[in-house]
Amino acid sequence: MDTRLFSFMGGDAGVWKTLRMETLVGSPIPLMPRLDVVSGPVNEGPRGTGWLLRGITSNERYVHRGEKEDLLSKQPRLGRPEATCAALIPIRKNAAWWGLTQDERRKIFAEQSDHIRIGMRYLPAIARRLHHCRDLGEGEPFDFLTWFEYAPSDEEAFDDLLVELRTSPEWKYVDREIDLRLIRG
Amino acid sequence: MDTRLFSFMGGDAGVWKTLRMETLVGSPIPLMPRLDVVSGPVNEGPRGTGWLLRGITSNERYVHRGEKEDLLSKQPRLGRPEATCAALIPIRKNAAWWGLTQDERRKIFAEQSDHIRIGMRYLPAIARRLHHCRDLGEGEPFDFLTWFEYAPSDEEAFDDLLVELRTSPEWKYVDREIDLRLIRG
Repeated sequence: MDTRLFSFMGGDAGVWKTLRMETLVGSPIPLMPRLDVVSGPVNEGPRGTGWLLRGITSNERYVHRGEKEDLLSKQPRLGRPEATCAALIPIRKNAAWWGLTQDERRKIFAEQSDHIRIGMRYLPAIARRLHHCRDLGEGEPFDFLTWFEYAPSDEEAFDDLLVELRTSPEWKYVDREIDLRLIRG
Repeated sequence: MDTRLFSFMGGDAGVWKTLRMETLVGSPIPLMPRLDVVSGPVNEGPRGTGWLLRGITSNERYVHRGEKEDLLSKQPRLGRPEATCAALIPIRKNAAWWGLTQDERRKIFAEQSDHIRIGMRYLPAIARRLHHCRDLGEGEPFDFLTWFEYAPSDEEAFDDLLVELRTSPEWKYVDREIDLRLIRG
């Protein structure tokens, strides 16, 4: 069976060491010294776990065929030895977003906010895996967890990418966002 | 908190009495005398539960604004006293479907298969609630559970609706489908 579900545990253990955490909108989560990323479901973390976030990779919701081929040809894999920096960005979108129809969401996401093309410009430097949480169950604290990996020399580019996205019309619908930065080791 | 997660339990208990079960494609599930529909998460059913299927209502994936307004104005609520017949139709779609992009899926769903307009023609007779299972976790046995309620006099219309959908191009991607018919009482 292919592994689609991932668990992110903030605590005392894990290969990723926390550098800093910024809460951009909404409630923060506890700042923990390390992060462990585990493939598969986890009911509770080991002793010392402060929080556990889960998400599942899924089919794309917005990209069209040409965009998908373009992404597939350019996006790097996770786990590159030089990509020692990582970011975990949990976000939640508000009820107005989820009340939109597919065509309205695509228009804001792709046409107005250029989300796909913005992301594409930072390839192949930034590796990314998107996890969905909203349909895992009721009461999930976030809708999406996005995991990024990049080399230290690409951190500035990564920050630019986030500024571009966060100033886009799509981000008006984001009502909770945390930006957790990590380093391997 | 609004309730989005529903559990369907086939067993000895529940207000819905099984009339018949047909397996259209893929593996069957055990035929149980009754069905209980419970709002919220259930880890295991009471004694006598033969199977437990779970699904979560979510944002629409394909309808455009005009179609949504049209649906909202015509679709009846669940629980109408005259709607003593029900059907639970769990389906799974194959990997080829999930590998398609949004525009390709919308084209097959709406333009080629007329799924939205076919369903609309049977309103307000047939009440319907769609539950998603695919992103609840790994290894869910179905991708969708659709729940229908209608009056006995509308059963023939309901059967016609299913024939229309099952002969559409979209159904080429369905690799598991069960049709469970029930009556209240």
